[in-house]
Amino acid sequence: MSSTEFTKRLLTYRLSLLHLQEIGLNDVYSHLIAGETGFSAALIRKDFSRINVKGKRRGGYEIDVILQAINNYFGDDKVSKVILVGMGNIGSAIARYKDFQNQKLRIVAAFDIDPAKQRKKFSIPVYSMGKCQEIIYCYEIEAGIIAVPAFSAQTVCDRLVYCGIKGILNFAPVNLKVPEEVYVSNVSLSNELRHVIYHAKQNK
Amino acid sequence: MSSTEFTKRLLTYRLSLLHLQEIGLNDVYSHLIAGETGFSAALIRKDFSRINVKGKRRGGYEIDVILQAINNYFGDDKVSKVILVGMGNIGSAIARYKDFQNQKLRIVAAFDIDPAKQRKKFSIPVYSMGKCQEIIYCYEIEAGIIAVPAFSAQTVCDRLVYCGIKGILNFAPVNLKVPEEVYVSNVSLSNELRHVIYHAKQNK
Repeated sequence: MSSTEFTKRLLTYRLSLLHLQEIGLNDVYSHLIAGETGFSAALIRKDFSRINVKGKRRGGYEIDVILQAINNYFGDDKVSKVILVGMGNIGSAIARYKDFQNQKLRIVAAFDIDPAKQRKKFSIPVYSMGKCQEIIYCYEIEAGIIAVPAFSAQTVCDRLVYCGIKGILNFAPVNLKVPEEVYVSNVSLSNELRHVIYHAKQNK
Repeated sequence: MSSTEFTKRLLTYRLSLLHLQEIGLNDVYSHLIAGETGFSAALIRKDFSRINVKGKRRGGYEIDVILQAINNYFGDDKVSKVILVGMGNIGSAIARYKDFQNQKLRIVAAFDIDPAKQRKKFSIPVYSMGKCQEIIYCYEIEAGIIAVPAFSAQTVCDRLVYCGIKGILNFAPVNLKVPEEVYVSNVSLSNELRHVIYHAKQNK
C-alpha cells in the first residue's frame, strides 16, 4: 500500500515538474514542489532520495535530473503498449486522448462487440474480441483498459487475465475481481464525483 | 486523509452491494463483501458500525440497510447538481455518461469557449463561460468537473472557485491549485494508466 502511494506521488511530482519546465524553470526547490502538489517538502526530499536524486550543492534540484530519475523508475524510455476494450462514449474518448501520446503510452488496438464500430474509422484499429489473444501476444501488450458496460466488465476482465494481461485500468462501474498477480485500478467516475461532492458539502 | 480513505471505502462497498443486490441477494456477510472489495472483513464491520449499521442477530447484514446508511452518510436522497467545463473528447463522453443518472448525479449545464459547441445539440445545454456565475448561483451547483486542455485548466479552476464552487473533479493533466476550503480531485488518465503498467511489470 505504501509503495502504491509512493508510486502515485512520483507521478504527481512529474506532472508538476513538466509544468514548471514548460513555464521556463530549470531548477526547483522542494518547497516549490510542495506548493504545487500539496505534499510536504520533507516527504518530497525523502522520495527523491529513494530514487537516488541528489540535491545541488547550493540547494535545490535540477528538474531534468528528477524527471529522468522518475522515468527510469517507471522504465519509461520506451513506449508502453496497451489495448482498450469497449468503444462506447468513454472508450472512444480514451482512444482519442492526446496526453497518452505525449506520455509514451500507445493504445495499439481496441475491441468492441459491435461490428459497426469495427468498420468505423478511428485512429486505432477496432477488432472483435476474438482477435484479443493474438494481438496481446503479437504486440507484447502490457496492460488493458476496460470501458465496457458494467454487466460485461467482469467477463472481459477474465478474458484479458486469461490472455496474460497483468494490469487493468477499469472504467466500468463495478469492482473487478482478479487473481493476486494481476493489478487492477477501478476508476468509477460516479464515485469520484460523489466523493468530491461530499467534501464540497463539508466545506460549505 | 484517513477520513478520505473511509469515504472512498464506503463508495466501494456501495458499488459491490448494488451488484450483489442485482444478482438477487438480500443479506450479506462481511466476508463476502471482503471478497468483492479486497478490504478485510474486520475493517468492513468497523466501517459499518461507524455509520451505525448493526448486524442481524444471527449474523450478516441486510443489504438495503447498509445502502440506506451509506446514502444517508453522503446525503444522497436528493439529486446532486454539478456543472461541466470543456466539451472536447473527454467532456462530451462525461456529458453522456449514463451511470451518473443512476446515481442521482445530474450535470445541469456545460461550458465551452467554442461557439460551435454551444450551438451543437447535446442532452445538456452548453453555454459560454460568461454564463458560469449565473448558473452556479441559480441552480445551487455543488461541484464542477473540469475537462479542458492542460493550459487553460488553472484559469477555469480559479473562475469556478471565484464563483463559490467548493469541489472540483479535474480531468486535465495538471495538478490544480485551490484554496484550503476547496476540495479538488485530480484524475490524470495518463498517471492512472502509467501506474497500472508499473504494477503489471512488477507482476510479470
